[in-house]
Amino acid sequence: MHALNLPAPAGKPRIVVIGGGFAGLNFVHKLDTDRYQVVLLDRHNYHTFAPLLYQVATAGLEAPDICGPLRKSFRGKRDFHFRMLQVYGIDPIRREVSTGAGAIQYDHLVLATGTRANFFGNTNIEAHSLPLKTVPDARNLRNHIFQTLERADLTDDPVERARLMTFIIVGGGPSGVELAGALSELRRHVLVHDYPDTPMEQLRFILVEGGDQLLAAFSDKSSEDARRNLHDMDIELRFGLLMTDYDGRVATFKDGTTIASSTVIWGAGVTGEVIQGLKSESISRAHYVIDAHMRVQGYENIYALGDVAYLSNEEWPQGHPGVAQVAIQMGKRLAGNFNALVRGKETKPFKYFDKGNLAIIGRNRAVADLPKGLHFNGIPAWFVWAFVHIFYLIGFRNRLFTFLSWVGNYITYNRAVRLVLEPTLEEELRGERGGIR
Amino acid sequence: MHALNLPAPAGKPRIVVIGGGFAGLNFVHKLDTDRYQVVLLDRHNYHTFAPLLYQVATAGLEAPDICGPLRKSFRGKRDFHFRMLQVYGIDPIRREVSTGAGAIQYDHLVLATGTRANFFGNTNIEAHSLPLKTVPDARNLRNHIFQTLERADLTDDPVERARLMTFIIVGGGPSGVELAGALSELRRHVLVHDYPDTPMEQLRFILVEGGDQLLAAFSDKSSEDARRNLHDMDIELRFGLLMTDYDGRVATFKDGTTIASSTVIWGAGVTGEVIQGLKSESISRAHYVIDAHMRVQGYENIYALGDVAYLSNEEWPQGHPGVAQVAIQMGKRLAGNFNALVRGKETKPFKYFDKGNLAIIGRNRAVADLPKGLHFNGIPAWFVWAFVHIFYLIGFRNRLFTFLSWVGNYITYNRAVRLVLEPTLEEELRGERGGIR
Repeated sequence: MHALNLPAPAGKPRIVVIGGGFAGLNFVHKLDTDRYQVVLLDRHNYHTFAPLLYQVATAGLEAPDICGPLRKSFRGKRDFHFRMLQVYGIDPIRREVSTGAGAIQYDHLVLATGTRANFFGNTNIEAHSLPLKTVPDARNLRNHIFQTLERADLTDDPVERARLMTFIIVGGGPSGVELAGALSELRRHVLVHDYPDTPMEQLRFILVEGGDQLLAAFSDKSSEDARRNLHDMDIELRFGLLMTDYDGRVATFKDGTTIASSTVIWGAGVTGEVIQGLKSESISRAHYVIDAHMRVQGYENIYALGDVAYLSNEEWPQGHPGVAQVAIQMGKRLAGNFNALVRGKETKPFKYFDKGNLAIIGRNRAVADLPKGLHFNGIPAWFVWAFVHIFYLIGFRNRLFTFLSWVGNYITYNRAVRLVLEPTLEEELRGERGGIR
Repeated sequence: MHALNLPAPAGKPRIVVIGGGFAGLNFVHKLDTDRYQVVLLDRHNYHTFAPLLYQVATAGLEAPDICGPLRKSFRGKRDFHFRMLQVYGIDPIRREVSTGAGAIQYDHLVLATGTRANFFGNTNIEAHSLPLKTVPDARNLRNHIFQTLERADLTDDPVERARLMTFIIVGGGPSGVELAGALSELRRHVLVHDYPDTPMEQLRFILVEGGDQLLAAFSDKSSEDARRNLHDMDIELRFGLLMTDYDGRVATFKDGTTIASSTVIWGAGVTGEVIQGLKSESISRAHYVIDAHMRVQGYENIYALGDVAYLSNEEWPQGHPGVAQVAIQMGKRLAGNFNALVRGKETKPFKYFDKGNLAIIGRNRAVADLPKGLHFNGIPAWFVWAFVHIFYLIGFRNRLFTFLSWVGNYITYNRAVRLVLEPTLEEELRGERGGIR
């Protein structure tokens, strides 16, 4: 039996980090690896700039524009070791994590596993709807959108076509709002031109929200701006609707409403990616409970960061928001504390610096709540948004190319990436003409 | 029962074209659709610039750089109708093709279906090796390469690691040579830096060719230049070897040689994508036999173009080469003939204008045979190659972005697209530690 290939940490403490998202990435980046060995584990070999996933889903950007290969990001970083692995469990007594390729010992463990889509136990919705949490999700959704329109173009059955041309977006948070806006622009600038034989006026995008407003975490003014903008862009908005079932053809809601649709995009909730093995007191509602030093409750040498962590204090009694800035700042703070510790300096508790909220709804349509109650919309908000996103993208190539892609798309409305790259309709169409779904 | 949605050809003949490759694309582009209705069918909704697939496979370019959405390419073309469909059969008596979504009538039928990988009936090799004929193939190969290296990085079993780090390329034609060169550069500029914990000196790329030279269709001087260049780039060259079996772990050859390898890239042959329904006299060795007017033998209104066609004449007694230029020129000639016919002008027989052969082996390494016996290698050949490819790419965005990607990669050696975007190792690794394949 051979072991997992990993160099011993020569006299230094080994820190194992699980997850290469915003939190893990910023932690590793800032950590002084002259004093610590760091092992980064992730199921994927790349970091995802998640706030732009909706652009990959709507053919505005390609995956490499918003992804950074993790090995490349830390090339040259001393005593840094990446392993592409799924972690199945934590053994806090033996101080090791179990993976598909063997156990890995740690001195300190940093959990930065983020979240996944939450279907609240509804297996039908889980089986038939499309989440938008990962790059494969985004590409899958893009393929689905274009493949569904190709199907709509093939049939002259008006009922079937209407169903194929109805798209439901569940959840009125930033990603639902941004996705709805991007779909509206895709319709206007691409789809109506690409499908001259299909009655594109039948194309419906329905944004369904359980509450009574969009962007609940934003200011009332921004929520209202978002509502008005999406309305102007022919997005149908339905409030107070809770989806209870979806079989791939018909969506059913709690109040009895039904909508025939081939596409449900699920953004109604997330849950923490909790790994088994810690005490139950460490976990609350699928999040690791941490203190201001990011220590998981009940452990001295286990930490949690970002979306999977739950940190409640006076300012944020319900916990911190699940946004990139919290993850980035936690990662930097924890690494700073490790660096301070080894030099005998004092560590500092985490304090979130809220830089505000931004959502883009379309070209020249965006909303922004900045600190001190500053509120933007329209073109100024779009510029702030573009600047912020370019700034936080990983790596020069990504920044340059994403910027060029945006400028190119802005000028030409040319979305070159609208390719259906998955296997074709063949299997489903063969011998099942009437049954196109 | 509803029918396939397709407008009737108002008093004009309908031409149905199967396949949106070089031949079909150029045919449609040149056809006068004031006088003909044209219906283009393809399994995919995009055109592939196949000569650059190896760059997608080796993380030099992303799929949208070498693909053009077919609907976009012909946006604004009068009476042009694209349908994303698989065609299952031809009924020349009823003059219709059968598809998964119903039958389509034609007045003229143009077969431009191209080729697929030929495994010569060896189902083991087919099941375990990786072809490089389509964009999904290329992305699949890229994922496989990086995933295999991630696996190599996980194990300290030297036998297992050696197998994971041995890559076999079968076939010494242009695509095998170009792929081998690109892999060598990937090793030198990316892999040795990305995998500091893996003994990269064990990484082997073996190019296996059944004959006794590379680039058999090129001049002897170019064949020899290619051999020398690949040798200098640490590609192992094995001539006179015919693979007879591959089970995913060990490749076996006719002379009894075996090589332990997790990766066989199959480029040893292609076969025509022939659709059933035509007389047997129309088909010879999986190609449609055509005359100088591209008419399929035995039919007045059925034509074949490009790689799937077999046209023998005095100059090319063994048939024309299966290269993009033949397909492009056939497509243009046939459309020109259709346009002439409707104006009462004379049609012209096809005559191939051979523009020469080009293969890129690496930065500053390329070989070119131009007409009149002109022969290039090194940097001048690379420039010719880059110019030719940029020139034939579809669409301004693709040309611009591909050019920028190349320049960017050239300067920075930064291959941002080395992402494993398929599902992770999880499934295969779970509970099967020793059995990583």
